[in-house]
Amino acid sequence: MTEDDRLGRDWIVARMNSLGMSVVVDRIGNIFGVRPGLDPQLAPVMTGSHIDTVRSGGAYDGNLGVLAGLEVVATLDEAGIQTARSLVVAVFTNEEGARFAPDMMGSLVYVGGMDLDQALQTRAIDGEVLGQALQAIGYAGDAPLGLFRPDAFVELHIEQGPVLDMEGVKIGVVQNLQGISWQRVVIIGQSNHAGTTPMHLRHDSGYAASAIACFVRELARDMGGDQVATVGKVDLTPNLVNVIASRAELTVDLRNTDEALLKQAEVRLAEFLYKLSESEGVSIDSTSLARFEPVQFDTALADRIARHATLLGLSNRPMTSGAGHDAQMLARICPTAMIFVPSVKGISHNPAEFTEPDDLVAGANVLLATLYELAQRGN
Amino acid sequence: MTEDDRLGRDWIVARMNSLGMSVVVDRIGNIFGVRPGLDPQLAPVMTGSHIDTVRSGGAYDGNLGVLAGLEVVATLDEAGIQTARSLVVAVFTNEEGARFAPDMMGSLVYVGGMDLDQALQTRAIDGEVLGQALQAIGYAGDAPLGLFRPDAFVELHIEQGPVLDMEGVKIGVVQNLQGISWQRVVIIGQSNHAGTTPMHLRHDSGYAASAIACFVRELARDMGGDQVATVGKVDLTPNLVNVIASRAELTVDLRNTDEALLKQAEVRLAEFLYKLSESEGVSIDSTSLARFEPVQFDTALADRIARHATLLGLSNRPMTSGAGHDAQMLARICPTAMIFVPSVKGISHNPAEFTEPDDLVAGANVLLATLYELAQRGN
Repeated sequence: MTEDDRLGRDWIVARMNSLGMSVVVDRIGNIFGVRPGLDPQLAPVMTGSHIDTVRSGGAYDGNLGVLAGLEVVATLDEAGIQTARSLVVAVFTNEEGARFAPDMMGSLVYVGGMDLDQALQTRAIDGEVLGQALQAIGYAGDAPLGLFRPDAFVELHIEQGPVLDMEGVKIGVVQNLQGISWQRVVIIGQSNHAGTTPMHLRHDSGYAASAIACFVRELARDMGGDQVATVGKVDLTPNLVNVIASRAELTVDLRNTDEALLKQAEVRLAEFLYKLSESEGVSIDSTSLARFEPVQFDTALADRIARHATLLGLSNRPMTSGAGHDAQMLARICPTAMIFVPSVKGISHNPAEFTEPDDLVAGANVLLATLYELAQRGN
Repeated sequence: MTEDDRLGRDWIVARMNSLGMSVVVDRIGNIFGVRPGLDPQLAPVMTGSHIDTVRSGGAYDGNLGVLAGLEVVATLDEAGIQTARSLVVAVFTNEEGARFAPDMMGSLVYVGGMDLDQALQTRAIDGEVLGQALQAIGYAGDAPLGLFRPDAFVELHIEQGPVLDMEGVKIGVVQNLQGISWQRVVIIGQSNHAGTTPMHLRHDSGYAASAIACFVRELARDMGGDQVATVGKVDLTPNLVNVIASRAELTVDLRNTDEALLKQAEVRLAEFLYKLSESEGVSIDSTSLARFEPVQFDTALADRIARHATLLGLSNRPMTSGAGHDAQMLARICPTAMIFVPSVKGISHNPAEFTEPDDLVAGANVLLATLYELAQRGN
């Protein structure tokens, strides 16, 4: 919801218009381009992703799914094919959660998982209110939420991890998705002089923040399996070389494919925070920024994707997604699955993010074949 | 060297003028108020401290030594006493090092320990160049450095630690001062997605920064004695909840009264940084921001302070200063010692910093008696 976001949205809308699609914007700013089918009674088939990005992100994350959806439409146009069902290409608002928490907000609100007014009142890390930001860029639409009831949803995305690249496999057929727990932790200690305060008399918020980051690394190592844990954001106050920090704010990102294990990780973190607050003599408060259970995608739809990949001569394998995606929200209302293409060296959320052009084309071809088949089905 | 600093300096200069002192500003912005003695052939006696502060500091740190020096002058004026030696009250530039490193810069340059041009070219953490900042606030003076060759230097300061307050002792007679080693550590890892990057494939600068903070805590605990160690400043890039940090910058503050032990701490830190860079697959570069050896003050001058405290009925004890002070620079060119008064609960570099009014008066009285005696001596 920045000026750059507006420019990206305008570009997508212009492209949808030039493809003859009708464009609808809903109240949380999600954009839908519609290519009408032959039978308006049949529920549409939906694809799409997001075009927002983390501050230092790459070019492929999200954008690939939206642009490939539009390319599917262009390809059907060139072939002179009108499908039985309508095709909808969706651009969901604020998938990354970089300024406004939680992430995947547009798709979450779309499927009824978050109250619209609450979402519009969300405050950015820089203080701006989401509803006002959306109006400022001209994307506070008036279409009702959940306007389309898709027959199925398929999202093409880069893997953002190293597995396909390392194994030399072209297509990932995503079966399920890790659960996510984001917490903001605020530590209040006592600011004091770094030279004159004996070690045993310190209440050091900066040390406590570091101890938490070291603990979650150890937690992930100890739990093993799919468990990952990250402290990506730390802010100390006053943040000076010779002053013991009075206040620290940090985030903890925990993910697991197994809900019971994810809960276990949360409990162990909470226990550690309690012990640390006692031993360091600081107060520690933790609040949830986002919490999503692991998601199981539609097996039949995943099998359909795998079959099309094989028919196209593309090596493929079942996968778990470690990242959150809009598809996990759509899975609440219709059969859903995802297609992954390789990320070179697994680099993502980084300007060096890269996928070979051939792999982009391969992913888009699997998307085309899958959407075409879905859109030709009757009831 | 901010607008607030200018206002403080203007206030001090006006006060010096109203006391009939002549005011001299040197090329690094140090301010000297001179009260002439009877014999211009005798080297002057100097007192003073600093009026700059850390961003979230208290009211007493530094200011006490300057204001008490002016109060000594006012008291001698009221008593109609002209001393044999001149009295000089000094205000040294940038003692804290909060914007410009190193700290204690004004006194360091004054005694010839740092090149003037190098100091004037120092860049602030916000980018401003020191020489230009000094000109902007009107305190780029033209007096040569080291203009006065003091016969002795005595600085009154709050303890900034808990010892006097905990023991109920009124006056600390400072015999020596901890050595200080400040380092800036820059870690370059690889930005990546917090959900999709397996733990063993991470090059996480944020984790590495935290591991360093935890290590220096353990180092201080393990070495014991006077060793203190602090990570007060940490900045991660991009500093987002779901992105593994690509870059971290932090500071390490190590202090010890024993130079050999301080060197040992530096070596152990360097070894840890090397091992960490190997195990995490990140590059780690460390540069020295400030390095001062422990300082031994003048024993005869310290004894003189202790005797005057006792004569005034004030309990007193020998002490080590854990903080750096301008006095440690003056000790390079003349007999020097310091007077400490209690800091309630040892709180310092914090708006809650507090010293009881009676204790401020007690410290100023010891300063008066000591300076008077020094200034009446012949050669």
